Amino acid sequence: MAKGEKKKWTVRFEPSGLKIEVPVGTVVLEAARRAGIYLSSICGGDGYCGKCKVIVDQGQFQSRPSTLLTPEETRENVVLACQTKILSDMTVTVPKSHALETSQILMDTDAHRFSELAGDVEAGIFKFDPLVQKLCLEMAPPSIQDHTADHERLYVAIREQIDAPIMQTGFRILQGLSKQLVEEKYKVAVTIGRRGGTTEVIEVEAAQRSGRNFAVAVDLGTTTVVAHLMNLADAATIDTEATYNSQINFGEDYIRRIIYAEENSAFDEMQNRIVNDVNNLIVALATRQRIDLQDITAIICAGNTAMVHFLLNLDPGRIRKEPYVASVGFMPPIRAAEAGIQINKRGLLYCLPSVAAYVGSDIVGGVLATRIYTKKGISLFADIGTNGEVVLGNRDWLVCASSSAGPAFEGSGVRHGMRAGAGAIEKLAVLPDGAIEYKTIGNKHPVGICGSGLLDTLAELFINGIIDRTGRFAADGDERLTEGEEGAQFQLAPSGDGHHEIVITQADINNLVRSKAGVFAAIRVLMESTQTKPEALDAIYLAGGFGNFLNVKEAVTIGMLPDVPVEKIQFVGNTSIAGAKTVLLSRKALETSEQIAESMTYFDLMSHPGYMDEFIRASFLPHTDLSLFPSVKLAPEKV
Amino acid sequence: MAKGEKKKWTVRFEPSGLKIEVPVGTVVLEAARRAGIYLSSICGGDGYCGKCKVIVDQGQFQSRPSTLLTPEETRENVVLACQTKILSDMTVTVPKSHALETSQILMDTDAHRFSELAGDVEAGIFKFDPLVQKLCLEMAPPSIQDHTADHERLYVAIREQIDAPIMQTGFRILQGLSKQLVEEKYKVAVTIGRRGGTTEVIEVEAAQRSGRNFAVAVDLGTTTVVAHLMNLADAATIDTEATYNSQINFGEDYIRRIIYAEENSAFDEMQNRIVNDVNNLIVALATRQRIDLQDITAIICAGNTAMVHFLLNLDPGRIRKEPYVASVGFMPPIRAAEAGIQINKRGLLYCLPSVAAYVGSDIVGGVLATRIYTKKGISLFADIGTNGEVVLGNRDWLVCASSSAGPAFEGSGVRHGMRAGAGAIEKLAVLPDGAIEYKTIGNKHPVGICGSGLLDTLAELFINGIIDRTGRFAADGDERLTEGEEGAQFQLAPSGDGHHEIVITQADINNLVRSKAGVFAAIRVLMESTQTKPEALDAIYLAGGFGNFLNVKEAVTIGMLPDVPVEKIQFVGNTSIAGAKTVLLSRKALETSEQIAESMTYFDLMSHPGYMDEFIRASFLPHTDLSLFPSVKLAPEKV
Repeated sequence: MAKGEKKKWTVRFEPSGLKIEVPVGTVVLEAARRAGIYLSSICGGDGYCGKCKVIVDQGQFQSRPSTLLTPEETRENVVLACQTKILSDMTVTVPKSHALETSQILMDTDAHRFSELAGDVEAGIFKFDPLVQKLCLEMAPPSIQDHTADHERLYVAIREQIDAPIMQTGFRILQGLSKQLVEEKYKVAVTIGRRGGTTEVIEVEAAQRSGRNFAVAVDLGTTTVVAHLMNLADAATIDTEATYNSQINFGEDYIRRIIYAEENSAFDEMQNRIVNDVNNLIVALATRQRIDLQDITAIICAGNTAMVHFLLNLDPGRIRKEPYVASVGFMPPIRAAEAGIQINKRGLLYCLPSVAAYVGSDIVGGVLATRIYTKKGISLFADIGTNGEVVLGNRDWLVCASSSAGPAFEGSGVRHGMRAGAGAIEKLAVLPDGAIEYKTIGNKHPVGICGSGLLDTLAELFINGIIDRTGRFAADGDERLTEGEEGAQFQLAPSGDGHHEIVITQADINNLVRSKAGVFAAIRVLMESTQTKPEALDAIYLAGGFGNFLNVKEAVTIGMLPDVPVEKIQFVGNTSIAGAKTVLLSRKALETSEQIAESMTYFDLMSHPGYMDEFIRASFLPHTDLSLFPSVKLAPEKV
Repeated sequence: MAKGEKKKWTVRFEPSGLKIEVPVGTVVLEAARRAGIYLSSICGGDGYCGKCKVIVDQGQFQSRPSTLLTPEETRENVVLACQTKILSDMTVTVPKSHALETSQILMDTDAHRFSELAGDVEAGIFKFDPLVQKLCLEMAPPSIQDHTADHERLYVAIREQIDAPIMQTGFRILQGLSKQLVEEKYKVAVTIGRRGGTTEVIEVEAAQRSGRNFAVAVDLGTTTVVAHLMNLADAATIDTEATYNSQINFGEDYIRRIIYAEENSAFDEMQNRIVNDVNNLIVALATRQRIDLQDITAIICAGNTAMVHFLLNLDPGRIRKEPYVASVGFMPPIRAAEAGIQINKRGLLYCLPSVAAYVGSDIVGGVLATRIYTKKGISLFADIGTNGEVVLGNRDWLVCASSSAGPAFEGSGVRHGMRAGAGAIEKLAVLPDGAIEYKTIGNKHPVGICGSGLLDTLAELFINGIIDRTGRFAADGDERLTEGEEGAQFQLAPSGDGHHEIVITQADINNLVRSKAGVFAAIRVLMESTQTKPEALDAIYLAGGFGNFLNVKEAVTIGMLPDVPVEKIQFVGNTSIAGAKTVLLSRKALETSEQIAESMTYFDLMSHPGYMDEFIRASFLPHTDLSLFPSVKLAPEKV
């Protein structure tokens, strides 16, 4: 067939085998998107993050040259999907690194953290009383002496097992109820869900299905979406999975995504993306664990307020405009199917409550998981994700604030930043001789730097005088300091063995410093406002997806956290999902989370008179006021 | 076009103008049914009730001769729709008597009774607190000082006006909420509905619509469906309407309809019929009162258990089989649209609770409306409809039973029986000279006999020796006693002035006696079981659609009610709808109705050892045991 006669080309993606027809000239990233395959991509298709590498097995294409590809990769037809136009039918292989391997490691971390930290249900802090339960009911059949109607007979049997003063049953269930009870000889499995103060009968099935009841807890991160599959019969975490938030192509942070959606009438598309991500996670978990989607009867989500709005297609427009208001803070449970979530068609979707437009349900989950609301002493909680949210308080009071610090510690906006996946540099140190020692996840060739590695990098370069207190390179004469396309850059790992060199650029450092300054300024505002001295802090909890081995001391060194004894600082991982899981397993924990959200006092930093000053003072390493960081020992010539 | 070429004929019905295509040979009644026009018809299309008269204006037809048509009617092409086959395109006029005039009179009666009896809300017994309310809310818009999310802001405002600890808002409402609040400058009309212990936000509208909130109360009778349109803003009854239950073509009583539906897989059709009847009533009321259907936000139904099951397409099959069990007794509120009821698409459908398969929510409504559950003294309540249900008790205890007595007093199974419409004989007396004096509704030519007239007829014929204590004609030599097609019959009104003669047949009398015997036997079982002597009865309430002027003394004369002083007996009309309206207007009344239903002890007469004996003894006029009826003075020769 002569070129030009055909207007559409078929692209086949391996190993999934998914196919899509696209017009000539479509870029591979867009084709993947349409086929429902989400490639890692942080820069939004601009060709500078190098995350969207795929291999073209067959077919003609036109690709822009990129320094992010090694000569070897180019020889093997590895391309950046966002920079490659499709010129014929094509077969493309998506490397495993885009999804499974990456997420598996994230997962192990989270599962580990959770088992350490958030076993509140097992620990007896909350009674095991999941939001959705499957009860096995055996009723005496009706008789002349007992002619109670089937519906009320069912209620009586349910109330013999659980406390449910107010009950509700959907119309479709009622219509089939009598036939079912007779067929099953009045022995059935009944799924009940808690909705506000009401207990709803969600499903009536054959009794032998009473053991099969699963749920999914989801952390809706701006950059990463994480899901844990739970067995509601015994509270066990069965499996975990994660993926990049595929909205990322519309903007790194949610403010940009809201603007994009407003300008392009793309709220439906935004919802489709995040719902699709969640559905993909659920399908992956269910398939791997051989669980029927109909047996997943609940999903609980925690995330920032905007992300919850996107998921439910609630209007998030006013989140970004003064006075910064959410549509819904305490989202009532709805049928998951109403939002497009593919679990049991009558299964329920819960969201943890949020505090404000910029302090979402992920933070409420964190307060719940760290239990700072129960303690007599004052704790500080900081969640470093795409934004940096901070909570200060104890059992009597809680204050909170959010700094829109940007996702630098999530690897975004950092040349070789990446999430904690295989090949990510997770630890880094400058040795006395100036050499750099690092450890990668899975001991693979280094392919980038994850959050804990970035924290180490910033701290080590600073302590060793490679950057100065303003964050500027001060390593004149060091051959690792070169001029790259985007200005000065410092080599952390040379290229070799088929991997490209790993560098940190001046722009990267500026981004990281901005992030940490935002967080510390927020902490200062809260501490000043509540007259909390650093020595009054009993504990600091640092949450976020940094990686396996976070050296919390480095967070003090760079001036992100107050200078308290290192034993008071604990890295707690993904507390958003930890909180969500606790709530899923205990009705009382849901109530508690609502009380927490209601009791937290929110400080709006954008209108706070002192915040900008604090931010500027914190934009130094560790700070303009060194007396705040007595433990930080600088290279003598840099003080 | 030659005959035979065309397989379908078009029938047009006037005055509606509705058209339908039917195969050749279809009977007119069936064509009307398919066109959505429900003709009065009690016999189910067997040609003996004479209720389905229509006029053929144009077209060929084949009609069986009938004694129910006068020669004049035959000349004017009046036919029985059920006995007339369509042989060409045809135009048929449906006389007004089929719907409006009849129902208007029924309505006036009910409205009258209700204003006398069941103004429990106005009387302060129940606080005016309707199940669905429209609140006018004015909120302070969000500010930097008060960043409460829109959803919670709405809840706060609602809770300032009403008690609503547990609230729920539908997902679609939430999705549009913020936009709407901003557009309306935080001043809106909010419709809230009570669902169990939960208060649901049903609708959010512009504030100026806060005055428009209506509801419909419906009595789902086996023979007649009655609807009252209520203004929920001020508790006023605005208008009333009634229609025959169009399921009637499938059987006079609901047991036959259940059997028909089972044998013909016709449950959907049964539901469609009753839902259609209700929708027609609502549309008629709304059109007449110029009310937008969207402003009708609630419907409440009372009726026997089978009829509520038909309405909701719940399985009624086990109602007719031992041990006689309903699917649902306490029906939770559902969205009316789920059942096909065409009010506001998020409006709620409530059903009063029922006690058992044969004591439905209409009876619970009656107990509520007559307030017997509040009284120290013992009352008897009897509702004579298609069945005869009986309740006995006081504020400490309530017992109840149902006799499947048949709808004789509703005019069904009685040659010239009819509902209380224009031309119905509603009062009848035998004068000392043996002549019969009667009064018709609207003072029209007599066209039949309604319930009160039938009661009078039975009592007067008996007292005056025209029938004996066994119900057999004993008027040998009276020229009004003749032999008709169905055996002996007695002329009550001669033909003339274009109307046919009105007779009562031996079969009619047997049916009426069977009905009253069933009711009295049920009363006796309850009184014997509770050791209640007739003199202990403080009050007897007789409910049913008898007509305007019921002579309650005659109910004693024939032995349907216990022989108590006549001033203790009160005719209370349609208490089913009276109870439904009270519940609609007061949440507390709904709770009370649930307590009533729960507290009533049901006696299953079919399995009761004494019932059949009581029934046989009551199958005499007034009874085999005359000592039970000391006030009944018989013609001396008949004692």
